[in-house]
Amino acid sequence: MKTFSTNDIENMEQRYRTTFINSMSGFKSLNLVGTINEQEKINLAIFNSIFHVGANPALLGMVFRPDEVERHTLENILCSKQYTLNHVHPKMIRAAHQTSARYPKDVSEFEVCGLTPFFTKNIIAPYVQDSRVKIGMELKEKIKVNSNNTIIIIGQIVEVIVDEIAIEHDGFVNLEKLETCTVAGVDAYYTTKKVERLSYAKIDRPTLSI
Amino acid sequence: MKTFSTNDIENMEQRYRTTFINSMSGFKSLNLVGTINEQEKINLAIFNSIFHVGANPALLGMVFRPDEVERHTLENILCSKQYTLNHVHPKMIRAAHQTSARYPKDVSEFEVCGLTPFFTKNIIAPYVQDSRVKIGMELKEKIKVNSNNTIIIIGQIVEVIVDEIAIEHDGFVNLEKLETCTVAGVDAYYTTKKVERLSYAKIDRPTLSI
Repeated sequence: MKTFSTNDIENMEQRYRTTFINSMSGFKSLNLVGTINEQEKINLAIFNSIFHVGANPALLGMVFRPDEVERHTLENILCSKQYTLNHVHPKMIRAAHQTSARYPKDVSEFEVCGLTPFFTKNIIAPYVQDSRVKIGMELKEKIKVNSNNTIIIIGQIVEVIVDEIAIEHDGFVNLEKLETCTVAGVDAYYTTKKVERLSYAKIDRPTLSI
Repeated sequence: MKTFSTNDIENMEQRYRTTFINSMSGFKSLNLVGTINEQEKINLAIFNSIFHVGANPALLGMVFRPDEVERHTLENILCSKQYTLNHVHPKMIRAAHQTSARYPKDVSEFEVCGLTPFFTKNIIAPYVQDSRVKIGMELKEKIKVNSNNTIIIIGQIVEVIVDEIAIEHDGFVNLEKLETCTVAGVDAYYTTKKVERLSYAKIDRPTLSI
């Protein structure tokens, strides 16, 4: 085992450190975020910073870096108050990754990356047609992280479109069956293999596979 | 594909909704969080809400529910200002899951769940000896989410202890090689299989496998 101190981390070459630290939290949620601007231009960007905030109301958070990257997405969310999250399966990985290139504001990543937008009457922002889990979001809260000037956006899930075959009897959505991918660092994409699902843990009896 | 509206979600039976919504964000980072209280009692709890906030300074966030659950961890972090994150590999899953049972404050989850604490001179909180990625954290910021009264804790990575075999030439930590697990919902544990790692996306050329 090798130990790295704060100094070791600070002294890393910048790209090395970015890659190293981005690996640290573990495997991350992977979503394409669909938005629309005032001129009704649609936008799509890949994010690995979506996190669960609560089930009732159903809230998810996402992190925006303070620099110029991904700003189209943040601007559009703040303006239209709506956005979509769309899971990525293996056949979508290259197109999804390509949305991270710095396209000008008036270019639709849907078009240049070869993904088809899909609309519902409830959400103004575009979904990704191919995604097997599509989540319509409404902006609830914008939070500034003072430690590094990142922005956290909290949104409420107001629509879910999901392939029925994946919904189990207790509400569990079997993402492995849908081949939802996960990401490590900023650029490594994975499928998953279940080890086990475990029963609610109690202090007086062992947990069981369910 | 099946569509669920806000109403459909609100009308779900509570446990069904919790399971359903917890599946939505995708696969999540899985970490055991080690803390210590004023009486030097050590505590360990499983979390699936760790997220990347920035690489320089190296910051990670985590979400705490507003109710009483997991409060020992939050209290200890606010008091000692330090905590550890520890990745989980398949042989640790049952012990890791068991830490989510509601043990009284004076019980060490290390002891009852069969995990061995490990200490360094830099961090007062206990690491998990068996973990192949151990991260020492210092509290930076406590943020209230007004939408549902959850608390987000932002911490800085001040120590990393990682199996050297996993660190690649560019700083990428190969979590698949370390068998770091990911979690879906609150109780389903997975290993991963790489589909591909892709080069930095540019607008004028296709991305490549690296």
